[in-house]
Formats: sequence, structure tokens, C-alpha cells
Amino acid sequence: MPQKNQDINFFFNPKTIAVIGASPNQGKPSYVILESLKKIGFPGNIYPVNPKYPSINGLRCYGSIAEIEGNIDLAVIAIPAPLVLDSLRDMGNKVKGVIIVSAGFKEVGEEGKRLEEGIKELAQREGIRIIGPNCLGIYDTISRVDTFFIPADRIGRPGRGGISILSQSGSFAATIMDEMAAEGIGVARVVSFGNRVDVGESDCLDFLADDEETKVIALYLESVDDGRRFVEAASRCVKKKPVVAVKVGKREAGVYAARSHTGAMTGRYEIYRAAFRKAGIIEVEGYEGLKDACRAFNIYRPARGKRVLIVTDGGGIGVSLADACEDFGLEVAGLKEETKKRLSSKLPSFCAFGNPIDLTGSVTDEWYVTALTEGLKDGFDIAIVTVLWGPPQLTDGLIDRLAGVIKGQDKPVIICTPGGGFTKRMNRAFEEKGIPVFATPESAARAAGILAKARRKA
Amino acid sequence: MPQKNQDINFFFNPKTIAVIGASPNQGKPSYVILESLKKIGFPGNIYPVNPKYPSINGLRCYGSIAEIEGNIDLAVIAIPAPLVLDSLRDMGNKVKGVIIVSAGFKEVGEEGKRLEEGIKELAQREGIRIIGPNCLGIYDTISRVDTFFIPADRIGRPGRGGISILSQSGSFAATIMDEMAAEGIGVARVVSFGNRVDVGESDCLDFLADDEETKVIALYLESVDDGRRFVEAASRCVKKKPVVAVKVGKREAGVYAARSHTGAMTGRYEIYRAAFRKAGIIEVEGYEGLKDACRAFNIYRPARGKRVLIVTDGGGIGVSLADACEDFGLEVAGLKEETKKRLSSKLPSFCAFGNPIDLTGSVTDEWYVTALTEGLKDGFDIAIVTVLWGPPQLTDGLIDRLAGVIKGQDKPVIICTPGGGFTKRMNRAFEEKGIPVFATPESAARAAGILAKARRKA
Repeated sequence: MPQKNQDINFFFNPKTIAVIGASPNQGKPSYVILESLKKIGFPGNIYPVNPKYPSINGLRCYGSIAEIEGNIDLAVIAIPAPLVLDSLRDMGNKVKGVIIVSAGFKEVGEEGKRLEEGIKELAQREGIRIIGPNCLGIYDTISRVDTFFIPADRIGRPGRGGISILSQSGSFAATIMDEMAAEGIGVARVVSFGNRVDVGESDCLDFLADDEETKVIALYLESVDDGRRFVEAASRCVKKKPVVAVKVGKREAGVYAARSHTGAMTGRYEIYRAAFRKAGIIEVEGYEGLKDACRAFNIYRPARGKRVLIVTDGGGIGVSLADACEDFGLEVAGLKEETKKRLSSKLPSFCAFGNPIDLTGSVTDEWYVTALTEGLKDGFDIAIVTVLWGPPQLTDGLIDRLAGVIKGQDKPVIICTPGGGFTKRMNRAFEEKGIPVFATPESAARAAGILAKARRKA
Repeated sequence: MPQKNQDINFFFNPKTIAVIGASPNQGKPSYVILESLKKIGFPGNIYPVNPKYPSINGLRCYGSIAEIEGNIDLAVIAIPAPLVLDSLRDMGNKVKGVIIVSAGFKEVGEEGKRLEEGIKELAQREGIRIIGPNCLGIYDTISRVDTFFIPADRIGRPGRGGISILSQSGSFAATIMDEMAAEGIGVARVVSFGNRVDVGESDCLDFLADDEETKVIALYLESVDDGRRFVEAASRCVKKKPVVAVKVGKREAGVYAARSHTGAMTGRYEIYRAAFRKAGIIEVEGYEGLKDACRAFNIYRPARGKRVLIVTDGGGIGVSLADACEDFGLEVAGLKEETKKRLSSKLPSFCAFGNPIDLTGSVTDEWYVTALTEGLKDGFDIAIVTVLWGPPQLTDGLIDRLAGVIKGQDKPVIICTPGGGFTKRMNRAFEEKGIPVFATPESAARAAGILAKARRKA
């Protein structure tokens, strides 16, 4: 039996890609994959494979893998489930890594399960490494690989960034990518591994731990293949970069749904929580949790601690934010007497010099600058600034002035501003300055809580 | 001592409004109030009062309340705190109701507290009813009153609708109104009552219980004035219409923040929870909870029960949604055998006929129609449909077809579709058909949970 290749680097740095079942038919996944590889600018050789066509889209099409000269780093299989095993057999040992995007395996019942077992056996016997089946494969802005067979006009592709995403669910990965693309948030590597017949979260974590392009790892898990290996791999990652995870299929309905999704037995949620804690993984809740984590880490490194300063011009939103911060494990500590003194020497006495610092509806741009500057000197690790735009003395000049304060120090500062048209325009202006904005107190507090939990080591 | 007017109808149906401290200076709250009253089209008489000016903006300006002929239903006081008491004294018994928007009372310390006590005593002695101080007052699309002194180009005003909002916090009320305006959600009456020297949540609930324009009541509370009266008033409302409440200032930091906001002693959160339960109030969490409740109730009446059907074309989002539904108290019950049979006779066998019904990435418009139609026959009270737009066979014709199914029955159906540019355009198209869309599994489940908790009585 050949040695299984433990290093799966070739998935993330392929020089050659074959697309098995390539088709000139625009409705077919394989067509979209060829288009996506072209669009993302894959710099290596692309080999469409299909005996029916001499060429596809200007690329020479091969009758079989055997016809291709030399070895192949990565083969993408996009053919009906019952044909997949034969296709793998045809590869012999010409191919290092395979992505099977085809569905129709363990997730659809007994017959599919049998087909999947056949693939698993072959992979082990031949030492071939497989991602999938029932997955979208890899989207990688570094090596410029895109096997996500969803047209880009429907599901956007993010630009280059430092976040890598590992997901058992293709739709979850694609949807969050689409939202990140719309918001200008970049990614490094995204892997949708689906039914996980071979390569799974732990293999990918092993790779990402040492990947210098990956600054943060976001995980979507329904289940884990090998608990002990997962904790080991994740622990190694956590020493180098934050790992955020959402576990779905927690309760009865979710567990049942997950089983008919990727055929996964999700097991008891409490076991996952314990494993996350042991590995130092930051657990987040649901889609919102993972998305807010990506938005926060796109801009900021982890905070040094959990002491949060809140600055507001609206009391009620400030109180809601204080509640939400405590819900997300932050410490809303009061101000030191000397800070209060400094603030009260520079701001009117009707402002509230607590935490939140409430600048009231009489606020000016200058007061925000003063409150944030003086407040941050008080040992806080992170700040959330709510700018409600009702007060007529506030001008859009505030955005530049706050950006100046924020760039001048190294603590994460988040803007939290719910509202309608005018507010949304101002929020975009903040984001153009590289300052992340969250549109509800809860999401701002969640993001700040995640940055705090990722606690900087140095 | 004159009898206190228990019926505060005149606040919501004034024929005459005096604005005390009216100013032609655009930066002043009183100017914005005059502008807002004009803009909303207040049909009665408006009397600016300020001895300094003969007229303001084409309206005759009065030197004092005494100069105005006849009685005044509503006087709005927008002058510095130390002058408010004298102004109230000048009114004699010409005025039924007063809104004091001025800040600088209990919330700023001892001196303000003393001023506020003076107002309270006078109100009790003279039988005059007061909203405020330190509030935004009333925004009412029925009687066309708007005392919110925030320029409308910054904070939008919603159109007419069935939701009434009572809020201790002006900024919270204004912000949620602004967001509702941007989303085309209407309101009936909004009251920001601030420091609550007299009129508070219970008086307003008494009025709203019998108000035919109000279909749903949303409450933002830091504290309650008189617990027993509140439970009585709320219970009476709940018999007629859903009442949703968010309690802020729950934990230590929030409690502290609330005190320096409206000077309120918030008391122990557990007591509020018990009161809400006793009155049949639906408690929601934070800003997101109240906003999602408003969005859901803008379109739908309460559901008949808590059994939720989930239809999806993306397994992972379906699993997340199932988790979130259970988190929000919904029952994600499985399908009956006969429903599964009907579905499998009409849909391919690789679809998952569970709950969620997972139509997979091969989905067509027709499959969604079949799944929702057949699924809803299975005794569900509410449905959440996730449409991920990746599958290339889906067309925008789906929106009309799903709208047809949804209009044809009387159960709430919510769309839950996270995503980027293409998805957001499709979401707007759903909303134009009157179908509410939620952009995360968590917010969709939250909204469905609220509709279920409000359980229809008939």
C-alpha cells in the first residue's frame, strides 16, 4: 500500500489542474469551473478531460487522464456519482490530489453510501488524497484556484485577504464569501470539504497553521472526523493565529438536518464545546457569529484584553451596548477618577462620564475626539463608538477626525451605528477609512467579544 | 387639588399645539419641531410662543401662553431646564398636556433632580399631564404630530402603519424609526417619554389598548414606574394585540449606564422577566430583537403555533436555521409519512424530505413551489424559506411564484437569504411583493419565534 501523502500543500499550490468531465455546456458545473479558473487567473496548466470533445473554450480537451503528459497536481471531478470510482481508477498514480464536487453519495442514502465507501477504499489503497465528494472544493486567492461551480454573477468572489475558511457546508462557505465580496473583505484560502471521504478539517488546519498568508481561520463544522487529531491540529494553529469556529447541528432538529446534509453524525454538542475550549478555539454562534468574526479580523488583530470602552451620543443605544458587551464576555469597567477629571475639564458637565461616556444630543465632532482619546488612555483594550447622526452639530468631518484618533493607537476601535439612509452613507465613509462598522449594538458587541477572546499573546 | 386627567387621548389627537421657546434659529430644537409639524401636515393650529419674535416662519408668534385665545391641547416646551418650571406656572389651566423635550434634569445630578421634583409637584397640584422631560416626545402618523427635534434628512420618519412604539430612550426610538423609514415599515404612534415625571408606559398602554390604529406595541424599557399598574395595563393590551418588550440595563454595566441616562433605578432584571411573563408580553433581546419584531409584525399577524417548516437549497444554511429555530423556541417537527410520499412523488429522490426540506443545488423554481405548497399542508404554523441563488436553474420568476403560494394561505412565510449583491437585489424584489426577508438564519428564526410567541388567539 503506497504511503498516504501527509503534506497536502499541492491542493493549495498546484501547478497543473485537470477538470474531469469538462463540458462546453454553460449549465454544467465543469464549465463554470473552467470559467472560474480562467477568471481568477490560475497561472498553471489547465487540462479539460472529456472524450466527447477535441477542445473546450480554446483549451485542448483530453480523452483521458492517461493522455496528459506528465503528472497532475490537482484533478477536479464533476461527473455523476456512479462514474466517479472508475474515473479515479483511470488516474493511476498520475494525480496527487482530487476534488470530487459531484453529489449523490452518503448524503442520499444506502446506494450513495456504498459508492462513497468504494472511493474511500481506493483512496486509502492508492494513497491518493481526496477533497469531497458533495462539496465546492477550493477557492484560493493566493494560488488562484477556484473550483466553486457557482457563477460569479450570482455568488461573488472576495479579493485577497488574510482570512481562511474551512467549511463542511458548501452553501455556507459560498454565502459568507458572497457577503464578504460585497463588503470588500478579502480571503486567503476557502475549502468546502463536504462529505470528507479523506481530507478534512484537521488536514487543512495542519496546512494553515504554517501558511503565512493565513492570519485567521474560520471553521464551519457539523461534525469532526477524529476528535483527538482535531484538538491537536487546532491547538497548533491557535499558538500562531486565532481560530474561530461555529458548530451547527447542536440541537435535535439541527442534528437530524446535518445527517441528511453531509451524512455526518454530529454527536453531542457538549463534547464539541469541550474540544474547542481545550484547543483554544473561539466558539461563535451561527452564521452571524462567523460573519462578524470575519469582519472584525479583516481589520484588526486580537485585543490585549476584554476591557471595553463605550462612547455614545445616545443614552439608550449606550445602555443596550453595555448589556450586549457583558453578554459577550467583555468587561465594561468604570472610568478612573483621573480620567473623569480630565474629561470633565474638557467636556460640559451634562455629559455622563461613566462607561458608556454619553456625550448626549448636544455633541460636537470635537467631543467625540476628546472622549475617545482620553477614554482610551484609561487602560481599555478595545472601544466601541456609537455615532447617532441626529445631533445637528455633528458633521461628516467627524469621520476623518475619528479615523485619525483610531490610526494613532493600536487598540481595536469599532463603530456601532444603527440607522437609515443618512447613517448608512456615513457608515460607508467609515469603512472606506478602514474602520469596521456594525449596524446593531449586538453585532458590535459580538465582534468586540471575539477580538477580546482571541486575546493577543504579545 | 384638581383631578388628574386619566384619559391622555389629547396627546394623540390634539387640535392645537403651542411650541414654547419657539425660535427662528435653524440650529434650535424648537425650530426643527415647527418644521416637522409643518412637514408631517399637522392639521390643527400651531402657536409659536416666544416674546422675542412677532412671527416665526410665517406663523404669528405669541409673547406668552396667556395671549393665545382659547385652550391648548398640547404645549411643547423646548427651553433650558432652569426656565421650565416658570413656563409651566404661566400656563395656568389653559393647557391639557405638555411635552418637555429639554434635558438637564434628574439625569445630570442633584440640581437637575431638584428642578424635576418641582415640575412633578406642579403637575400633581395642577392636574396637568406631562411627557418628559429629557425626551423626544411624540411622533404620530395618525394625528400627524412630530415633536422629534431631529432633522428629517438625518433621521428619517416612517410612514403610516400599525406598530406603536413606547420608549424610555429617545435615541433608541429615533434610530429604530430611522431604520424602519429606510425599509418602508410604517408606524402608528411613537412616544419617547424620557425621565417620565408623569406620563409613562402604563398611561400610554392604557391608551394604546383601545387604539384601533395600533395593531402591535413595541416597548423599550430601562425601568418601570409602578410594577403592578404596568402588569395590569399590559395585560389588558395583550388581550387585544401583541406587546413586545426589550428590557435594557440588565447587568451591572447596563444598570449603571441606565442610571446616568434617564436617572432610572432599573432594579433586578428577574423581576421584569416575571412581570413580562405575567402580563403575556413577548420579551425580545436588545435592539435586534425589537427591530426584527417590528419587521415581522409589519407584514404578519401572529402565527397559530410554533411548528416551523424550513425549505432550503443549501444544506448548511438549513442546518444553521434549524439550530436557530430551536434556540428561539420554535418546534422543527419532522414531516408526516404522507407528506414525504407526496414530496417524493413530485421531486427527485436526492432531495432531503426532512425538516428542512433540502432541495439541493439542482433546485428549480418549480421545486420551491412544490416543497412550500406540500410542506405547508403538513400542519405547520409558519415557514422559513431560504433561497440561495447559486443554483443556475433558479430564475427571478421564482419571486412571483413563491409570492403566489404565500398569498394563497394565511400562515406567515419568511424569506431568509444571506448574501451579496445579486442576493440583495432579489431580496428587495421579495420585499416589494410584501414578503419580509431576513438576511441571517438567526434573524429569520428570531422573527419567526416572535410571531409564534404572539400566538393567535382565534
